[in-house]
Amino acid sequence: MVFNKLKKRTINETADELGFGTKYADDSSRIINKDGTFNINKIGSTYHLYHDLIQMSWRRFFILIFLFYLGLNIFFAFLYLGIGAENIAEAKTDSFLGKFSAAFFLSAQTLSTVGFGFYRPIGNGANLLASFEALFGLLCFALATGLLYGRFSKPEGGIIFSKNALITPFKSGFPSLQFRIANGHDNSLIELEAKIIFTILENHDGIVKRGFYRLNLESNEIYFLSMNWTLVHNINEESPMFGISKDELIEKKAEILVLIKSFNESFSQVVHSRTSYSATEFLWGQKFVLPYTFDEKMKTIFDLKRLSETTPI
Amino acid sequence: MVFNKLKKRTINETADELGFGTKYADDSSRIINKDGTFNINKIGSTYHLYHDLIQMSWRRFFILIFLFYLGLNIFFAFLYLGIGAENIAEAKTDSFLGKFSAAFFLSAQTLSTVGFGFYRPIGNGANLLASFEALFGLLCFALATGLLYGRFSKPEGGIIFSKNALITPFKSGFPSLQFRIANGHDNSLIELEAKIIFTILENHDGIVKRGFYRLNLESNEIYFLSMNWTLVHNINEESPMFGISKDELIEKKAEILVLIKSFNESFSQVVHSRTSYSATEFLWGQKFVLPYTFDEKMKTIFDLKRLSETTPI
Amino acid sequence: MVFNKLKKRTINETADELGFGTKYADDSSRIINKDGTFNINKIGSTYHLYHDLIQMSWRRFFILIFLFYLGLNIFFAFLYLGIGAENIAEAKTDSFLGKFSAAFFLSAQTLSTVGFGFYRPIGNGANLLASFEALFGLLCFALATGLLYGRFSKPEGGIIFSKNALITPFKSGFPSLQFRIANGHDNSLIELEAKIIFTILENHDGIVKRGFYRLNLESNEIYFLSMNWTLVHNINEESPMFGISKDELIEKKAEILVLIKSFNESFSQVVHSRTSYSATEFLWGQKFVLPYTFDEKMKTIFDLKRLSETTPI
Amino acid sequence: MVFNKLKKRTINETADELGFGTKYADDSSRIINKDGTFNINKIGSTYHLYHDLIQMSWRRFFILIFLFYLGLNIFFAFLYLGIGAENIAEAKTDSFLGKFSAAFFLSAQTLSTVGFGFYRPIGNGANLLASFEALFGLLCFALATGLLYGRFSKPEGGIIFSKNALITPFKSGFPSLQFRIANGHDNSLIELEAKIIFTILENHDGIVKRGFYRLNLESNEIYFLSMNWTLVHNINEESPMFGISKDELIEKKAEILVLIKSFNESFSQVVHSRTSYSATEFLWGQKFVLPYTFDEKMKTIFDLKRLSETTPI
Repeated sequence: MVFNKLKKRTINETADELGFGTKYADDSSRIINKDGTFNINKIGSTYHLYHDLIQMSWRRFFILIFLFYLGLNIFFAFLYLGIGAENIAEAKTDSFLGKFSAAFFLSAQTLSTVGFGFYRPIGNGANLLASFEALFGLLCFALATGLLYGRFSKPEGGIIFSKNALITPFKSGFPSLQFRIANGHDNSLIELEAKIIFTILENHDGIVKRGFYRLNLESNEIYFLSMNWTLVHNINEESPMFGISKDELIEKKAEILVLIKSFNESFSQVVHSRTSYSATEFLWGQKFVLPYTFDEKMKTIFDLKRLSETTPI
Repeated sequence: MVFNKLKKRTINETADELGFGTKYADDSSRIINKDGTFNINKIGSTYHLYHDLIQMSWRRFFILIFLFYLGLNIFFAFLYLGIGAENIAEAKTDSFLGKFSAAFFLSAQTLSTVGFGFYRPIGNGANLLASFEALFGLLCFALATGLLYGRFSKPEGGIIFSKNALITPFKSGFPSLQFRIANGHDNSLIELEAKIIFTILENHDGIVKRGFYRLNLESNEIYFLSMNWTLVHNINEESPMFGISKDELIEKKAEILVLIKSFNESFSQVVHSRTSYSATEFLWGQKFVLPYTFDEKMKTIFDLKRLSETTPI
Repeated sequence: MVFNKLKKRTINETADELGFGTKYADDSSRIINKDGTFNINKIGSTYHLYHDLIQMSWRRFFILIFLFYLGLNIFFAFLYLGIGAENIAEAKTDSFLGKFSAAFFLSAQTLSTVGFGFYRPIGNGANLLASFEALFGLLCFALATGLLYGRFSKPEGGIIFSKNALITPFKSGFPSLQFRIANGHDNSLIELEAKIIFTILENHDGIVKRGFYRLNLESNEIYFLSMNWTLVHNINEESPMFGISKDELIEKKAEILVLIKSFNESFSQVVHSRTSYSATEFLWGQKFVLPYTFDEKMKTIFDLKRLSETTPI
Repeated sequence: MVFNKLKKRTINETADELGFGTKYADDSSRIINKDGTFNINKIGSTYHLYHDLIQMSWRRFFILIFLFYLGLNIFFAFLYLGIGAENIAEAKTDSFLGKFSAAFFLSAQTLSTVGFGFYRPIGNGANLLASFEALFGLLCFALATGLLYGRFSKPEGGIIFSKNALITPFKSGFPSLQFRIANGHDNSLIELEAKIIFTILENHDGIVKRGFYRLNLESNEIYFLSMNWTLVHNINEESPMFGISKDELIEKKAEILVLIKSFNESFSQVVHSRTSYSATEFLWGQKFVLPYTFDEKMKTIFDLKRLSETTPI
């Protein structure tokens, strides 16, 4: 890709390549949220239960399972009562609550396949119902098994980004845009690739549209994210950010979109991480401090909490 | 790939590259069906049970499991009766149905490992049978667990295609072929690539054969399918579709084959989607309408149901 | 890769690239077996239980599970007897066999978590043993669940190769080497790539060594294996097979190594298939017949059984 | 990559590409450990339970499961006692130990879903607790199932490296750096790629920093690791190792970083293997011996134990 021709490309080309669009006229909100999701509402899409069950919070997941188990047992309890409480051994009571609780416990002990045998079905109807409730229970727990493990073993990008992007002088004499990333987890991220896009509102014959430009990086791939990676874009004559003032960046709602691809070695999976820096998250006149120190044995100690730490130049 | 040399390539080259063939003489049916399957009958292929169990409808899957469980219990019931109904506790009846139902419920409660203990095996033969029925049951449910979760977590391409492909004037002055795709689900599709092939019947020295040609696209990959992606092929002098009239396209059974490759981020898997547009599904003199609107906060709202919506030029 | 320079490359280069070696002096056996495995004995490698359990035949797998379950129950039965038969409810017998069978059935009903409750542990020792036997049983079945499904859902290459490779005149005037492949299963194989290597014994200053050469193909990748794919290598002046007679090929133990990479869409996995044709499996003066016919509606019917069918020229 | 320009590149470029850094001033420890892990301490990273449970030793894993099961049963036992020992059938004792053991066994038989029925809950409170303990037990075993299989089926790189790297004369007249790798397991490793980096302490205007240089290989990829692969770097004028004496390599703490990428065919997964050779692990004046022999049928026998075997030149 010939980056020194970027400014001459039509806006649409980079936008198309990204799958965005240039529609964002006077859009006050950011394009990519800090957590990497896209700031778009979609209506009419198909609901996918699995996707929802995998993505929801653990708290909501366990409440759902609890309620599902409760509801299922209440449902089967009424089925047993429909066949007749006399078909449940030991449901020797006249009160509805007594009968219901016997039916409920029979159902729970069948669904979970515990089967103590105190409450047990009597006669063909109740026994048949219990036979198929056990089958149903096993299938439900099969699904829960998969979901629980699927959730538990889901790889997370694990990449954490520095809070701010710095615009700071670099060795070349030109200013440079810099931000840092690190692996927030203890597993191994390897073969990282980065794509950085600069977007800003532009006035085309009176119509305000968003322009999208790829930013050239000092290096756009590394083999291993053992400590931190500082991504550096030189704002020289070839850069689409060249000559744009601080006020202009903020006023025209400039935003840096960050797309990182990596291979999570622990999970053997490709993982994509995203974030963005809006112009209000740029810092001028600061530089990053070294995030690592050395112990008495000269072994490197890398401190994740210092990833975003800067100091005035 | 040098697209401006496409018309000079032999037909076989593109056809070979696709894995089709030029055999379709006077074939009235389409090559790729709307749902992406190939319109070919294959005989003699090896039946793969897993593949079938994963692909069948949920309805058929559950009926099969139900029947399998029922059949298995009937089978084991007869085995217990073969050993002797006197070896089943509480099977105190002279009627065959009574004995059979006791044996059936003993089997069901063993297979599902509920084991209430009312019906239970007596003696070495019945106990041994029950021991191995429980093992067998556990293995069956192991398989069902895997299948159920495999089905449930199966990634779907999720890509939906506009109903028609439009042939509509484009900014270049030439007409262009256009169609739109979007992600029908709420998960993330990224790193999309498209291959488009044009196929038409051709007369080679009196023999009618299908010709296959790759179509050049404005852009053939995007990073993220956040909203819709309009795929545009310019029908200029270099296009194999150049100068072919509407009637000719229909008469010669022209067809556009669409092959999309994407990465489903939610499932961490590469997914391939296919469809085709036959000439009868082309629209002339129409253009697509914008499928999104803005709410009061200028937030974009993308409406999937309007993906195929067109308006006269 | 510049194929017209192939003959000038040292033998080692292609051999190295493949990971073989040129050691096979006067080796009468083939390099790659028909089923794609390598004809090498390795000693000293680490045994990997999982790999073995996944690869063994279903018959052997089920016999192993059966024996493991049997052995485990016998082992636990002796543990219960060690604690004392009087600690097993209903083991009211003086014969060893009676006590053993009670202990065995208690173990089986605990391991499988059926727990009828007739045979049940009495006292702290037996109850404690039963508690941990149930834990152990659940872990064993957890492993069996995974293995069973892992085996069941294992993708198979599914590619079947024509029985022979033909050396047959081609349109170019030169002879060509041809063989055919097809998908033996009903699932979808896409994005296929082929690498073909020709190997033959050569005399280098009196030392007989194997030479390895890549063969150029008419097309070495296709998008979709919907029917059959005929792989064609032209034996022209640039081919390392050029000018070698039939007798020489057989005498010098020539062999064609075939390496196919594909993406199995049903399993979302990359699959590698291999085979080889030794010179004795080459056919001269034959050509392949079309493996498909058309039904009355002109729909293509592809017959896998005719993949290897040839006819004299 | 133009390797003959390597010496002219700034140190930072290769270092950046690797994700290391040039910080290692007078660092006495190696950069990559023999087992492929990086010699860096990281603090502040997020703990990931799944990752830990998958990586720990089998011994520790089983002790953890055992203790978790024990602890859980003790916890539930106290809950049952809290409801009242009179609500546990057969807990007919006045001693605390007797009541506790009844509650403990009830819990174990509920958690594992064995449910003999001798110890069983009486009344609504205990029955309700048992119902949800069974649910909880099933979810715990669901997780254990996944973890157990995840651990069991985890692909291991399986690549073993020769103990030493040799610096030995090669056919070109120049010395060469050589080491060997082989597949330590019986499964198939294919499509191997190697990256080799040379790092050494350098004096830049009085500041001692590490320089990083890629080393050119005779061939840096092979198709199949059937036997051994000897990786060879020629130390000619273009090599960054050219002209550096044995003493200098050791004194300046030279190290060879080895990064291997392969596809494990048995697990259908990409696997990365790493190791390093410090200068003290280089051998001079030795060459590798052939690691294979031939049996009486001229079949090749490859002996893994001889991978590191050398002989004086």
